[in-house]
Amino acid sequence: VARTGAARPEEIRRHNLGLLLEQVHRDGELTRAELTQRLGLNRSTIGALVAELTDLGLIDERVPTGNERAGRPSHVVAPRADGPFAIAVEVDVDSVVTAAVSLGGEVLARYDHTLPVNGTTPYDIAERIAADVEDLFASLPLSARSVGIGVSTPGTVTPTGGRVEHAPNLEWRNEPFGTILTERLPQGIAVSFGNDANLGALAEHLRGAARGFHDAVYLTGKIGVGGGVIVDGKLLSGAGGFAGEVGHMLLDPLGPPCHCGSRGCVETYVGEQALLRLAGRTVPPSRESVAEVVRAARAGEPDALRGVRAVGVGLGRTIANLVNLLNPQVVITGGSLATVLELSRAEVEHELDVRAMSEARRTVQLRTAGLGDNSSLIGGAELAFGPLLADPVGTAVPPERADRRLERATRAAI
Amino acid sequence: VARTGAARPEEIRRHNLGLLLEQVHRDGELTRAELTQRLGLNRSTIGALVAELTDLGLIDERVPTGNERAGRPSHVVAPRADGPFAIAVEVDVDSVVTAAVSLGGEVLARYDHTLPVNGTTPYDIAERIAADVEDLFASLPLSARSVGIGVSTPGTVTPTGGRVEHAPNLEWRNEPFGTILTERLPQGIAVSFGNDANLGALAEHLRGAARGFHDAVYLTGKIGVGGGVIVDGKLLSGAGGFAGEVGHMLLDPLGPPCHCGSRGCVETYVGEQALLRLAGRTVPPSRESVAEVVRAARAGEPDALRGVRAVGVGLGRTIANLVNLLNPQVVITGGSLATVLELSRAEVEHELDVRAMSEARRTVQLRTAGLGDNSSLIGGAELAFGPLLADPVGTAVPPERADRRLERATRAAI
Repeated sequence: VARTGAARPEEIRRHNLGLLLEQVHRDGELTRAELTQRLGLNRSTIGALVAELTDLGLIDERVPTGNERAGRPSHVVAPRADGPFAIAVEVDVDSVVTAAVSLGGEVLARYDHTLPVNGTTPYDIAERIAADVEDLFASLPLSARSVGIGVSTPGTVTPTGGRVEHAPNLEWRNEPFGTILTERLPQGIAVSFGNDANLGALAEHLRGAARGFHDAVYLTGKIGVGGGVIVDGKLLSGAGGFAGEVGHMLLDPLGPPCHCGSRGCVETYVGEQALLRLAGRTVPPSRESVAEVVRAARAGEPDALRGVRAVGVGLGRTIANLVNLLNPQVVITGGSLATVLELSRAEVEHELDVRAMSEARRTVQLRTAGLGDNSSLIGGAELAFGPLLADPVGTAVPPERADRRLERATRAAI
Repeated sequence: VARTGAARPEEIRRHNLGLLLEQVHRDGELTRAELTQRLGLNRSTIGALVAELTDLGLIDERVPTGNERAGRPSHVVAPRADGPFAIAVEVDVDSVVTAAVSLGGEVLARYDHTLPVNGTTPYDIAERIAADVEDLFASLPLSARSVGIGVSTPGTVTPTGGRVEHAPNLEWRNEPFGTILTERLPQGIAVSFGNDANLGALAEHLRGAARGFHDAVYLTGKIGVGGGVIVDGKLLSGAGGFAGEVGHMLLDPLGPPCHCGSRGCVETYVGEQALLRLAGRTVPPSRESVAEVVRAARAGEPDALRGVRAVGVGLGRTIANLVNLLNPQVVITGGSLATVLELSRAEVEHELDVRAMSEARRTVQLRTAGLGDNSSLIGGAELAFGPLLADPVGTAVPPERADRRLERATRAAI
């Protein structure tokens, strides 16, 4: 019931360190004057915070990257090039991506693997990730420090333990994926988990098409359909971290059967399987078959175009429901739904006109994902950076101690 | 994008004053020891905060109301009996209630008026409220101080200006209700506005069946169907304050036509009009006709029972959608939907079993409103108390100055 407890003076400095680091992590290069203004603190306080984050090896001051301004450039505060990195993992139905992402959001290295669509077990995927993490460590300088691993999964998952409650398109139910994975990783690395669409929403909010919006929805279409909701600048997680299951919201109680056991779920109208069916294709969904329909629709083939537009109607109805409930400033679509929005915006907008309450409908913007197909991966990195940004002092490993710790961890993994 | 700005030491005291007052406002009587524990502050700080709020005329220390403990009772901190009060107004389709509510949530006085169902203008309602506010002031001691007026409206409304964007069952569109009302009230009184279901959610969260839950949904059935969502302990308002329009979420694209212009909205399945239709009644919805169906259903009349159960199916589908999207800890139903939940819980639970994702479904609780039919009214009072709780120092009028100010305001109103 209570709001967060009363603020204690001794907590303020650490909170402010986190705020400053977060600004720099998100925007890359900022002058002290900009930081002073954003944080509403005086110059000497900003100076002290910058000094402390510099000592922690997290930021440094340098000449800005761009060169547009005449005269002597003023220094900017920026994430340290050899600062800590996050390992982001995106598990999808037919692929696994493992990447090192720097403070500031740059992808330093990445491995992409395609997997068979059917029958992949949590053990297969954990082995693959563990091997890639080992390769990543080997490819980076020994001084590199990892803040941890953030894993995106295509289903409902517990945030800390990584128990996959239900990943329907992997056909996993109640799998202790987190335990299986952690056993195969170097000891002492923090591993956290999130639903792919939730993490996509987080990343689009921080660095993509929903940047600067406090209330946003992200929808992504793959074989499954997922959603993530940003409320008041924060990811909506719900009571147990399972919020955002837009794919299984009802559009019609007598609609097509859904693999979840219900009927007429959003997924049966706007998922990739629906796209193929509505476009008259009889092939199973895969990257290739979906790409073929999209190419055909772009080229004006009537069946493909009809399919995309029918999905557009379902997408419009889905968005109308979300607009009525959540009144977001912006709705972002990713995956195949980005293409659907692009090619059938008229159908989507028409459904919104008919079904969404007028004031909320008038103000909502529809956009395609700003991070393309990387939203969930970048969201995984943001998840891993979370504890560092919340409390840099309590979390960061100063450079001189990090080397040995990492070396041990890497040896343990070999 | 940024979290709230960096905390400044000089803001902490005022923030903490608000936190302490909020605890006492919500829970009535608390010992200093309880306050020390809840706020995580030391005893001397709590002592100073209590002294300052006492000087402001907001709280006092007294012997607790109950008498269960043996020995000398320790004093408790409690809202001051003659402390500031809020004026709560609930505008409904066929009624207006105006009440004085004390710090601590006690209704000190209230006026209930029934209005004709059709053709009531914003002017009629504003006149009624202004007369009742005048009577309230006259009925309370001259020393009573008002923090302002919180108005609950059955439609979408802008929080500060009180422009009613759409109140479908009053047939108001874009009405400057706030301006019309404020012109008729004593000068200088703060007036704020909220959607009835949003305010109901707020009140149920603070004092009703959702108390202690951080993630909750409140649904209320009258002629219209409204919703309010609590996320992370706060009311979800959305970009423009229009969130929570559950009544116009889609349950079936080819369903019955809705007065909003769409088809198959939640309201056409679970509103009072739907209840009467599904129970085979041909009378228009009114308090009496709905009460008759409820009585008949309780008595086991087959048509009435069938109607209530059909509404239960629609309610279950609506709740399943909300559980999938929001993963709330609890869903509260009020108005006619409280009765529907009571009489057709099996239908509601069955739809949840079929349509809601398992983990979120397993943990959600379904409850009827704890404040009965007063949720929105009490929510109006909470709205009016908001500024005082956020900053008691900047908002409270000390007792000695209040008398004159109120006297002037009351004279202006006469």
